[in-house]
Amino acid sequence: MRFDETYSGKVFIKSHPNYEESKAVLYGMPMDWTVSYRPGSRFGPNKIREVSIGLEEYSPYLDRELGDVKFFDAGDIPLPFGNPEKSLAEIETYVHTLLADEKIPMGMGGEHLVSLPVMKAVASKYDDLAIIHFDAHTDLRENYEGEEYSHSTPIRKIADHIGPKNVYSFGIRSGMKEEFEWAKENGMHISKFEVLEPLKKVLPTLEGRNVYVTIDMDVLDPAHAPGTGTVDAGGITSRELLASIHAIAASGVNVVGFDLVELAPVYDHSDQTANTASKLMREMILGWVK
Amino acid sequence: MRFDETYSGKVFIKSHPNYEESKAVLYGMPMDWTVSYRPGSRFGPNKIREVSIGLEEYSPYLDRELGDVKFFDAGDIPLPFGNPEKSLAEIETYVHTLLADEKIPMGMGGEHLVSLPVMKAVASKYDDLAIIHFDAHTDLRENYEGEEYSHSTPIRKIADHIGPKNVYSFGIRSGMKEEFEWAKENGMHISKFEVLEPLKKVLPTLEGRNVYVTIDMDVLDPAHAPGTGTVDAGGITSRELLASIHAIAASGVNVVGFDLVELAPVYDHSDQTANTASKLMREMILGWVK
Amino acid sequence: MRFDETYSGKVFIKSHPNYEESKAVLYGMPMDWTVSYRPGSRFGPNKIREVSIGLEEYSPYLDRELGDVKFFDAGDIPLPFGNPEKSLAEIETYVHTLLADEKIPMGMGGEHLVSLPVMKAVASKYDDLAIIHFDAHTDLRENYEGEEYSHSTPIRKIADHIGPKNVYSFGIRSGMKEEFEWAKENGMHISKFEVLEPLKKVLPTLEGRNVYVTIDMDVLDPAHAPGTGTVDAGGITSRELLASIHAIAASGVNVVGFDLVELAPVYDHSDQTANTASKLMREMILGWVK
Amino acid sequence: MRFDETYSGKVFIKSHPNYEESKAVLYGMPMDWTVSYRPGSRFGPNKIREVSIGLEEYSPYLDRELGDVKFFDAGDIPLPFGNPEKSLAEIETYVHTLLADEKIPMGMGGEHLVSLPVMKAVASKYDDLAIIHFDAHTDLRENYEGEEYSHSTPIRKIADHIGPKNVYSFGIRSGMKEEFEWAKENGMHISKFEVLEPLKKVLPTLEGRNVYVTIDMDVLDPAHAPGTGTVDAGGITSRELLASIHAIAASGVNVVGFDLVELAPVYDHSDQTANTASKLMREMILGWVK
Amino acid sequence: MRFDETYSGKVFIKSHPNYEESKAVLYGMPMDWTVSYRPGSRFGPNKIREVSIGLEEYSPYLDRELGDVKFFDAGDIPLPFGNPEKSLAEIETYVHTLLADEKIPMGMGGEHLVSLPVMKAVASKYDDLAIIHFDAHTDLRENYEGEEYSHSTPIRKIADHIGPKNVYSFGIRSGMKEEFEWAKENGMHISKFEVLEPLKKVLPTLEGRNVYVTIDMDVLDPAHAPGTGTVDAGGITSRELLASIHAIAASGVNVVGFDLVELAPVYDHSDQTANTASKLMREMILGWVK
Amino acid sequence: MRFDETYSGKVFIKSHPNYEESKAVLYGMPMDWTVSYRPGSRFGPNKIREVSIGLEEYSPYLDRELGDVKFFDAGDIPLPFGNPEKSLAEIETYVHTLLADEKIPMGMGGEHLVSLPVMKAVASKYDDLAIIHFDAHTDLRENYEGEEYSHSTPIRKIADHIGPKNVYSFGIRSGMKEEFEWAKENGMHISKFEVLEPLKKVLPTLEGRNVYVTIDMDVLDPAHAPGTGTVDAGGITSRELLASIHAIAASGVNVVGFDLVELAPVYDHSDQTANTASKLMREMILGWVK
Repeated sequence: MRFDETYSGKVFIKSHPNYEESKAVLYGMPMDWTVSYRPGSRFGPNKIREVSIGLEEYSPYLDRELGDVKFFDAGDIPLPFGNPEKSLAEIETYVHTLLADEKIPMGMGGEHLVSLPVMKAVASKYDDLAIIHFDAHTDLRENYEGEEYSHSTPIRKIADHIGPKNVYSFGIRSGMKEEFEWAKENGMHISKFEVLEPLKKVLPTLEGRNVYVTIDMDVLDPAHAPGTGTVDAGGITSRELLASIHAIAASGVNVVGFDLVELAPVYDHSDQTANTASKLMREMILGWVK
Repeated sequence: MRFDETYSGKVFIKSHPNYEESKAVLYGMPMDWTVSYRPGSRFGPNKIREVSIGLEEYSPYLDRELGDVKFFDAGDIPLPFGNPEKSLAEIETYVHTLLADEKIPMGMGGEHLVSLPVMKAVASKYDDLAIIHFDAHTDLRENYEGEEYSHSTPIRKIADHIGPKNVYSFGIRSGMKEEFEWAKENGMHISKFEVLEPLKKVLPTLEGRNVYVTIDMDVLDPAHAPGTGTVDAGGITSRELLASIHAIAASGVNVVGFDLVELAPVYDHSDQTANTASKLMREMILGWVK
Repeated sequence: MRFDETYSGKVFIKSHPNYEESKAVLYGMPMDWTVSYRPGSRFGPNKIREVSIGLEEYSPYLDRELGDVKFFDAGDIPLPFGNPEKSLAEIETYVHTLLADEKIPMGMGGEHLVSLPVMKAVASKYDDLAIIHFDAHTDLRENYEGEEYSHSTPIRKIADHIGPKNVYSFGIRSGMKEEFEWAKENGMHISKFEVLEPLKKVLPTLEGRNVYVTIDMDVLDPAHAPGTGTVDAGGITSRELLASIHAIAASGVNVVGFDLVELAPVYDHSDQTANTASKLMREMILGWVK
Repeated sequence: MRFDETYSGKVFIKSHPNYEESKAVLYGMPMDWTVSYRPGSRFGPNKIREVSIGLEEYSPYLDRELGDVKFFDAGDIPLPFGNPEKSLAEIETYVHTLLADEKIPMGMGGEHLVSLPVMKAVASKYDDLAIIHFDAHTDLRENYEGEEYSHSTPIRKIADHIGPKNVYSFGIRSGMKEEFEWAKENGMHISKFEVLEPLKKVLPTLEGRNVYVTIDMDVLDPAHAPGTGTVDAGGITSRELLASIHAIAASGVNVVGFDLVELAPVYDHSDQTANTASKLMREMILGWVK
Repeated sequence: MRFDETYSGKVFIKSHPNYEESKAVLYGMPMDWTVSYRPGSRFGPNKIREVSIGLEEYSPYLDRELGDVKFFDAGDIPLPFGNPEKSLAEIETYVHTLLADEKIPMGMGGEHLVSLPVMKAVASKYDDLAIIHFDAHTDLRENYEGEEYSHSTPIRKIADHIGPKNVYSFGIRSGMKEEFEWAKENGMHISKFEVLEPLKKVLPTLEGRNVYVTIDMDVLDPAHAPGTGTVDAGGITSRELLASIHAIAASGVNVVGFDLVELAPVYDHSDQTANTASKLMREMILGWVK
Repeated sequence: MRFDETYSGKVFIKSHPNYEESKAVLYGMPMDWTVSYRPGSRFGPNKIREVSIGLEEYSPYLDRELGDVKFFDAGDIPLPFGNPEKSLAEIETYVHTLLADEKIPMGMGGEHLVSLPVMKAVASKYDDLAIIHFDAHTDLRENYEGEEYSHSTPIRKIADHIGPKNVYSFGIRSGMKEEFEWAKENGMHISKFEVLEPLKKVLPTLEGRNVYVTIDMDVLDPAHAPGTGTVDAGGITSRELLASIHAIAASGVNVVGFDLVELAPVYDHSDQTANTASKLMREMILGWVK
């Protein structure tokens, strides 16, 4: 695998031209073939890059500039259309290489299932890993209509892998009764409906821990993120999500990787959701890559 | 009138196949011909059914599943295009039948005028009836440019019918000066701009009363419900509307019927408003049909 | 497998309520997981049904009414999301059952790959089978980036199966050089750019043959079918495609099955392409099911 | 009725400021309440005016400028929402006044039913009146689901009024079998599918006759007019419709009034159909008002 | 310059027909040629007028009706396309005339740069002038890629002109580090992220002062104003902006002019942002023109 | 000026990585600030590049592959927003450099005015230069509302520069009377409405001449190119435009440069027009760069 080859597509603003010198690596995982409802998130990563040109590189929230962080935009991982197993395997291999090179993985989805191989790779490096998960949906099914690897199962799979007690979900407002019950019985943290307040209570308990953060855009209310696969009313505002990112940045946790998934540009209007995703990515880079 | 005939269109998820065994009946009132501004709400009911397939049947708010409530989706009432008087008469007849069969009527509009014949039918059964009304608009005109039956008059007509003191409006932020004055002079309750807080104060005073609830989607802010006939800035969030539904569910009032009107799919984007309407309907069914 | 069970979704106008009495069966194949570009055709079949309500049941082209043909709308075949191999196998099994019951299969895609198992099933019944194929694209690749079952390979696979000389493609205006060369070398018929004129020359040579017809919506010019996965300028008008359907109806070929694929509603505007697809389906039913 | 009052809305480019001095009067009929499918044509007239600002006032087809024709844009006729009978009566009265003032009526719809009272008023002035009708639909029903005044009945009503032999329909590609049969049995002219060629054959037979022309935008193919209530594939191009307008202009018929109906802006994209409607109106004014 | 000439376009509802008798004048500044990102705000003023027809003329917030305020809608100032310097000069001249006639200028943009000549003209009349500025962006650049007059510079230019201490910005969440530093060093007020709370603290300090208010629509969150040139997540709600307008109305400042800029209809959906802009304008007229 | 520097944006498929080795250079001219109607073509060049990924690199029309032509995609020329004069000067300088390096300039607009400096630069190299111009509009004004450099003037300016007899316009269907008269009086060729047939007559007369071709997307009918600044009904199909490109390729003229302008993505739907523009560009490269 080579990361330094000439990339002919667009890149996130202010990404560093050199892989070796970079501390973090941004990459797209353009897969959407297991979703049951509205596909289209395969185009999410490139759209985030495209609209990043409209961002200021300075964050008045964090008083820091993108130029202060060396990150490399490696483009999208080439994935075989319609083959989830092979796709997941390739993502996992890819992230292992990043971790071997001491890079912080920063992923862009794609459907939420792409987070699973990333989290597994990261968990193999950090054995105290905790997962912070922002989402409207539990994603805790064991399988979806018989298929084990589905957009509905990634959090369950990783919880099975690293232990449910190490997984913290926030903003959940949709799921099957059985999923909520499983979480409760197995000691997994689920904050229903709310994000910022419970997060502020959880963060001190994670102080010093290595943490992977996975954000599904649909944790936002449809008013704030219409451009996603499955919208669900009653979500949080982009202000609250920004404040949550800043709360993690100000806490004592050590973010060792993160992703932002489920931006589906075809359902977006005038790039509203894409612009928000792009700003969220800037804040995560500036707040979490230290 | 027959309700058990084979219906060839789509139905709301988990609707019961049998009318007789059902406690509540869901029906569409696809009429939009008296609106002065943007027509299109005639397609609202079928759109709510269509997107309901994306809903979980379980509500984490109420800890109850759709399978726990027997309700029958009877499809849309066939209405004569462009003939409001005949349309209203047919709706009224239809609801009288439902009530005679001891069913709880659950309507989907259509323009707000469709609520009038339903409320009249319900009022003929329950003589202590109170109306809870969520809306951006007063809908209190005596007539609209000479036409007595218009989208601007239904609340006035029902207030005249059951007495203004039995009507409680919430979230109102638009109307003529005369309408607000008429309400004040006649002892009708209007909460301007606000919904949840005043509702919580009103509900205890209605304890034990039979109540009909009518929700105009435009009580929501345009950010939360762009897909409606007349948007008006400064409205409430979908979170607040969900909380209001749950407040009614938790109160001591007896909901004997309800409707959700003014979803206009053609002005909606990626079904944002439709998905919200569908979720609101699930919460009303789970919270109010006991 | 049961076809007579209660179907809770919408159906194509004037579909017959009874499977046994029907001569032809309409079914959806809602699969789009191997496409490399824009997914979304999974929603095609239901959209065709939905807008069919706006169709007249009479064709002034053919002077025949839908009521004159007994066809059963069996809904969509349930397919496992993101699993192409299993999906194709289920489609093939499904069509074998239809054929065993002496029904004419009428499919709605979905991506073009769904036609492959149907054509294979039909070919196992009719050993003189010829394929008439309308498309902008050759679809003649051996594999697509290593994946053998892809939206780019179905015509190649069926040509390998029944012999390239039995496949007739019309309207082709996009493909790799190697694909055109393979067709030429193997005696497969390709009419570049044109449809109606070459079709009129080919039809007499197929007189008396059993024929399966597969129509990819993108054979139409983007002006006539914007709502498809891969638009390509320079295509034919909907008038020419209608005339082609009528030419087949008037010829001496025996249509033993057909499909219409690649309607992708999310890229459509005001249902323009969907309405056209729905009308095309009516004409095929009226013209080809005798 | 006063026509010279200050009008506060927009007007068609180069409309004359003075009613008395004008030879022709342009007016909107913003009614869409009897349509069975997609409402919204009420906004057609104002949209045509709005986009007219993008038109050149010179026609290179006719070598004539709008400044050469004195026409007055009188704005929209105020119509009672949801009351078809009263609306039709008001339109008829309005046009009688125009005719009494020796003005040529030039109407903009609105649904097609608005043409009926205009044609009746014009027929009362010209007893040799012939109707030239461009449309995808027959509009020849006696009633529509029991309602006599419907968007499906105007051509039948006027045919009953002035005699079917005086009505000439072109481009028809949709209707009930009974409608086509009625036309045939009663000697009414229907050119199925085609417009320009049959029109050129009919025009010489109408030489010297007073003629009213009514154009339903849906005679155009959906590729050329997506922004209409009921699209139907297989229509003509805007080039052919322009040529048809010019053919009438070059013929010996005497156009005594005309209208353009069924532009529905909400289904239009980037004002494509509206711009076309606006150009068609310019050509009709320049070609037919002599 | 004449203001009383016949205007052939649409006007804001209830605008007074007579310039001389009016206390305030509404005018459009349809310029968008220096924006670096998404142009289109040139169509903002006419869109605000168009949708104003859907407004009630009564404000339940202020208990006042548009009929109570005499304001004249003068249409758009004709500006030379693509020539910013000349455009700015013409706007400045125009506003000087309004001020000489003792009219309150009420402007509609257009890009934010159009506010600069207006503020300069107003500053020449009121030497104690303070600016209240609602915006997502600092707009404090000295130049933008070498161009001094750009959408990124107007607040800097007016701050240089009247002194940074007289400029109060609210809701700012985007800008270069240097801009924030410049503001701090020069004593200019910037409330980052927040609007209503800091405004309530600032207003008492401005009591008795003459104040010009300029509102960039993008101070609103993208959920509330998708239809603008540069959306930026984390903004305020329309409720908060309405409350801010009312806070100014209730304060002791003397509003001597104001504008609303950056509505870009082509990025708007179903006129959501336009309707909000129109309502904001009504509230400003009713609250600030005394 | 350096052309070999690392370009961080996307490029047209199969563009060569090396400037020196390339025979032709593709560049964007993202200027739209003098248009009077709908801006947005500044985003045209990047959109053409973005959708080019969906193109096959082989043309079945020309039996040639993009890999057979060495062309370099140099990205967009940086232009000062809102400053037309400086923008035009920078384009002219840029193209002079290309020509000095013996490259064939291949431009992408932007508004049509960007073609003027290119044509002037090319004319300075080839003194027998002829212009072939495809457009709906004459673009022959001397000035537009006083501004000499406007989207309405480029063809007039180049005609004044190289002599009107050397300019050949095709497909023109809109303009002022004076423009058509000026062309006639000065011996400039204008084919009204038609393209392919008159082009086939003109081409033999240009045999051996050096020719620059400029294509305004709006020569296409709005059905084929809705995504442009000024749509005008009655245009040609994309088939005819493709055939015209191929006719030039097959003729004896020597194409020394060309451009494609006025793609405005914001008015486009599902990238219909962009995909067409991208395919047209492929055919021009394959057909004209020999």
